[in-house]
Amino acid sequence: MNTFGNIYRLTSFGESHGPGIGGVIDGCPPGIELDMEFIQRELSRRKPGQSRITTPRKEDDEVQFLSGIYEGKTTGTPIGFIVWNKNQHSSDYENLKTVYRPSHADYTYQMKYGIRDPRGGGRSSARETIARCVAGAIAKLILRQYGIQIQAYTSQVGSIKLAGSYKDYDLSRTEENPVRCPDPEKAAEMEKLIAEMKGKGDTIGGIITCVAKGVPVGLGEPVFGKLHAALGHAMLTINAVKGFEYGDGFDAALYRGSERNDRFFNDNGHINVRTNHSGGIQGGISNGQDIYFRVAFKSVATILMDQETVNMQGEDTILKARGRHDSCVLPRAVPIVEAMTAMTILDYLLLQKTR
Amino acid sequence: MNTFGNIYRLTSFGESHGPGIGGVIDGCPPGIELDMEFIQRELSRRKPGQSRITTPRKEDDEVQFLSGIYEGKTTGTPIGFIVWNKNQHSSDYENLKTVYRPSHADYTYQMKYGIRDPRGGGRSSARETIARCVAGAIAKLILRQYGIQIQAYTSQVGSIKLAGSYKDYDLSRTEENPVRCPDPEKAAEMEKLIAEMKGKGDTIGGIITCVAKGVPVGLGEPVFGKLHAALGHAMLTINAVKGFEYGDGFDAALYRGSERNDRFFNDNGHINVRTNHSGGIQGGISNGQDIYFRVAFKSVATILMDQETVNMQGEDTILKARGRHDSCVLPRAVPIVEAMTAMTILDYLLLQKTR
Amino acid sequence: MNTFGNIYRLTSFGESHGPGIGGVIDGCPPGIELDMEFIQRELSRRKPGQSRITTPRKEDDEVQFLSGIYEGKTTGTPIGFIVWNKNQHSSDYENLKTVYRPSHADYTYQMKYGIRDPRGGGRSSARETIARCVAGAIAKLILRQYGIQIQAYTSQVGSIKLAGSYKDYDLSRTEENPVRCPDPEKAAEMEKLIAEMKGKGDTIGGIITCVAKGVPVGLGEPVFGKLHAALGHAMLTINAVKGFEYGDGFDAALYRGSERNDRFFNDNGHINVRTNHSGGIQGGISNGQDIYFRVAFKSVATILMDQETVNMQGEDTILKARGRHDSCVLPRAVPIVEAMTAMTILDYLLLQKTR
Amino acid sequence: MNTFGNIYRLTSFGESHGPGIGGVIDGCPPGIELDMEFIQRELSRRKPGQSRITTPRKEDDEVQFLSGIYEGKTTGTPIGFIVWNKNQHSSDYENLKTVYRPSHADYTYQMKYGIRDPRGGGRSSARETIARCVAGAIAKLILRQYGIQIQAYTSQVGSIKLAGSYKDYDLSRTEENPVRCPDPEKAAEMEKLIAEMKGKGDTIGGIITCVAKGVPVGLGEPVFGKLHAALGHAMLTINAVKGFEYGDGFDAALYRGSERNDRFFNDNGHINVRTNHSGGIQGGISNGQDIYFRVAFKSVATILMDQETVNMQGEDTILKARGRHDSCVLPRAVPIVEAMTAMTILDYLLLQKTR
Repeated sequence: MNTFGNIYRLTSFGESHGPGIGGVIDGCPPGIELDMEFIQRELSRRKPGQSRITTPRKEDDEVQFLSGIYEGKTTGTPIGFIVWNKNQHSSDYENLKTVYRPSHADYTYQMKYGIRDPRGGGRSSARETIARCVAGAIAKLILRQYGIQIQAYTSQVGSIKLAGSYKDYDLSRTEENPVRCPDPEKAAEMEKLIAEMKGKGDTIGGIITCVAKGVPVGLGEPVFGKLHAALGHAMLTINAVKGFEYGDGFDAALYRGSERNDRFFNDNGHINVRTNHSGGIQGGISNGQDIYFRVAFKSVATILMDQETVNMQGEDTILKARGRHDSCVLPRAVPIVEAMTAMTILDYLLLQKTR
Repeated sequence: MNTFGNIYRLTSFGESHGPGIGGVIDGCPPGIELDMEFIQRELSRRKPGQSRITTPRKEDDEVQFLSGIYEGKTTGTPIGFIVWNKNQHSSDYENLKTVYRPSHADYTYQMKYGIRDPRGGGRSSARETIARCVAGAIAKLILRQYGIQIQAYTSQVGSIKLAGSYKDYDLSRTEENPVRCPDPEKAAEMEKLIAEMKGKGDTIGGIITCVAKGVPVGLGEPVFGKLHAALGHAMLTINAVKGFEYGDGFDAALYRGSERNDRFFNDNGHINVRTNHSGGIQGGISNGQDIYFRVAFKSVATILMDQETVNMQGEDTILKARGRHDSCVLPRAVPIVEAMTAMTILDYLLLQKTR
Repeated sequence: MNTFGNIYRLTSFGESHGPGIGGVIDGCPPGIELDMEFIQRELSRRKPGQSRITTPRKEDDEVQFLSGIYEGKTTGTPIGFIVWNKNQHSSDYENLKTVYRPSHADYTYQMKYGIRDPRGGGRSSARETIARCVAGAIAKLILRQYGIQIQAYTSQVGSIKLAGSYKDYDLSRTEENPVRCPDPEKAAEMEKLIAEMKGKGDTIGGIITCVAKGVPVGLGEPVFGKLHAALGHAMLTINAVKGFEYGDGFDAALYRGSERNDRFFNDNGHINVRTNHSGGIQGGISNGQDIYFRVAFKSVATILMDQETVNMQGEDTILKARGRHDSCVLPRAVPIVEAMTAMTILDYLLLQKTR
Repeated sequence: MNTFGNIYRLTSFGESHGPGIGGVIDGCPPGIELDMEFIQRELSRRKPGQSRITTPRKEDDEVQFLSGIYEGKTTGTPIGFIVWNKNQHSSDYENLKTVYRPSHADYTYQMKYGIRDPRGGGRSSARETIARCVAGAIAKLILRQYGIQIQAYTSQVGSIKLAGSYKDYDLSRTEENPVRCPDPEKAAEMEKLIAEMKGKGDTIGGIITCVAKGVPVGLGEPVFGKLHAALGHAMLTINAVKGFEYGDGFDAALYRGSERNDRFFNDNGHINVRTNHSGGIQGGISNGQDIYFRVAFKSVATILMDQETVNMQGEDTILKARGRHDSCVLPRAVPIVEAMTAMTILDYLLLQKTR
């Protein structure tokens, strides 16, 4: 199942060490001026080697469009694109051909399909998300015309976390540091922790918070296409994601209706709410308030330490991982979270036009 | 979007105070013997009025099958069914026609569709989940043939929570108390808290944990149909759900790869794992271990207290809610969580047959 | 696969001799005033027993709506409905339990599913089309608001055929005779032929022509959702249909480009075409001209004559059919062709709004 | 809508004069050995410049696979591929930028999307079918393992037609002549007619017949996924197709049930039929007999003669077409008909596994 979306649909393909990663965007509205620099910039936000805390792999990820564009504008026909793989070191993975890496997808892919491409994790590699970033960048360009803005940031790495809500930070400062955290002090702590992990060959998890502003009231398709269910699904398809919560999220379990209901009031002639515990969505439909949610990422499974595991024959063995890997995916996952959010909101915005 | 699933598909319909709630199950394998008592029992697990802590509404929910069954067995043709609404007190909702209830879907439905059925919340009522319980019960019957068992339970109400993992409890005791919590002592505390809320006309949230045992390795369809993404989507479509996490979930943020990787080992000739932090799913594909996840529910929005709100004209008003409502949805949501889990796993099990 | 459509979706259920035939319409725009008399009238156009040439079965087909409507208007939530089966004589089919009727679906259903409901053909009965007529009637009500009108008629029964194109007849006279043919003289001949078939216990095939007027330019979704492909698919799902052609259809094989290209010209300031061999669709997209097409129906498989066949054990036997059957489906298939056309055009009209 | 299929799904992209034509095949079973020579040969069957009666455009269509294959076998992950466009003469189309060609898709694309790529017809070019041939070739490789064979041939060009059914010809001789007609004499006549058309700058239509042998009983998904409806839909998505009929097709209108019912009989212990007027499908489900159908193609719209038309301003003008075009698409459409048939049958074969 490599197609995402109902109207604005991305079908993606590609393995980590194959010729490239690409996709086809179908259902994109016609006449959209494509800001190629913006798209490339979005793509570069997820690329490796951006800073000393990300993997030193140099992936010069450049998107080549193959169709659906004429004189710089979308034509309404499918947009094919590819980012060619370069600088892949498949030999790094030679020893993985017959070994199942702990907490990786090697074993399950082998069991499901009876065959797998072991080079760099094949299809299970997070390099797959390149296609999402391209489709997400185009979605962002379209959403911008509707005044919708999406901003994600790293809110937790290990036990270092931002205490406040997204409203307590100047999100425009997110890109100022390599961990993409809007609080410079916490960012420095996180960066230090990640560097420490890197030094040990270990990895660490974290949480990304995302906010969508300007989403009009009315998006979402009850009962199985509730907007938060679509967003949750989108986030959970991202590599290493273990949880999703929106509005009060898991904390909602703790509170009473009398404490957490979002009371309506007449705000100078407009209906407004006193609080936004709902996270901008009620009954699965956007209510015009900020939509915010949090996404939990586990630590990267590849650690540069010896690990007990088995080979394809089921024999016990010790895995000595090599390769160039991230010690923490959070910084590079921020644009991916945004991309999936943008695609989802655009998709439901287009669906709402059928009403 | 009222259809759920890819192969085993439920299309549901119905409003709280209309003629009934029903659905059509398409893609159900033929030749399945339908244990009508089991189906009815599953349906009764979610019905109101089961105990003193649930709403006193007496909904005598009986399913009537309309098609797809011959001599007690499924025929492979669509299974239509309906549960007629009885005992509805629409007059209780007369005053809601022009008022938007805080944290309810009244406002968003009105804005989205320009019209809404105000009686009992209409389509946004949790009564809609009846259809899911019916389709889920049939899914369970089929999964049983594959040795797959699904068990959910209330693990938290307000701040009263079970300290251990699902392995620390005898889940067969879940149905022994009205809150559906396998720990009798905690169950008693939860029951007391819910009763207290009820006395005050207030409500409280909580968390449901669900475990699926016996799921074979290989289910899940990367990259957009990862099994946990499908489960998360399924859970997030349930009324009042605010969050989903599987395996280590949000806690995964805190740990290092070296601490939480699930190491493989040769277990008397079979490949096994020393731990199951992954929650039975790796790379979006089941690995044969127990699948477990947690679902967060907010407190019910309807409280029997005066609340500030606005009417359809946007004027400030005070809502004096009446009606018969749950003070905590958790006990009745347990079978719904199980139903959505069963449908999802069956759907992916059938998809896997196309390999 | 019992769901039809992308945005305006019908999911249908029901067998000939089960409790009833029904469906769920999802994606219907909200706020549509439902003219219940019109819907019932459309349904009555397909019911048996309308005239001496149709089956004498008296099916008092009345639709009961189950959801999605509030104060006479659609609410945007799914519209469930059912037409209860009455007056079924299942005993007529007792002898069919173990016999495969020639050119019927008994054998293929048994082979596919390993089980079948033999009463009245079960799901393979044309009684299933009731659901289509209901969903089609609502689609027509919506299309009417866009000035789109759909009219089908019987253009051939056996070798008796209308010589001219749809433009040569006053289509408003279609309902004046029981065969639904706008040419009264040909209609009389057709009626006589059908009566003759009936007298012999035999059956006869024919062709229905359909015209959609007022379809705006721009509907259709290349390359796999070309409008004529969607219409062709829709028609081919109707029982007994063997062929579909639009515009010049099979005759197009005979002609040269220089003879049949539809030349554009400036028609008092508007772009128009001199001819419409294309049938209102070019490149899979409507061009604003009349859309017309023809649908071929085979003779009804059930004949009241002794027929050689086999039983479920594969033994040769003689089938002595009983029951009350049509000698020609054409007259009653006219509203079904219209219903499927209406649903298809509405669906693509809604899709076009996402551009 | 550029995705075809339910389980075995092709998403295609590409314009005639863009970088290339490609696609993504999702849901392909893993472990399939890809015979690259076979795939390339299938692709070459549709390429221009094969003989003196096809367009002299030299399109050296070579497929490059981008993903989903490891050591020559499919891995179950999406198979991306591209055929790069070469030898395109976009300047030939410079004059078409502002002119609507009669019976082409220029006008409808412009009206639908508000923008179009005028070079070579853009997305509406039949060059798009390259992607279908690639996906169809892989489908054929898989079907071969099930003993299913698909063979199409040109059965009519203009008024020159084969009198007999597919059983009257040695279909293995189809590829012996450039028109792909198994009757050498008729083939010669057809070739002469096409050459004559070419000499005049005119074009001619025709009919392709297709037969699928070895399809097991049980494929097809009533009521909206009837096998013939899926095949009809598939055929009608091919450029220039105007009609589809299967089994007796439009002729079925002429006959009586007593004449055309396919009687079952015990054929040495197996259930067989005396005739196959049904075309191998009953009730929308394959019955194990040969599936055969016919597809009508109109004459190519591009003729090298002056034609009356309008420009984008709606002004009358004369179109003087240039470029290198086919005078008859039939010979090159034969592999496309086969490809769409193969994809459809494989898709339904995989669907049937979910029963």
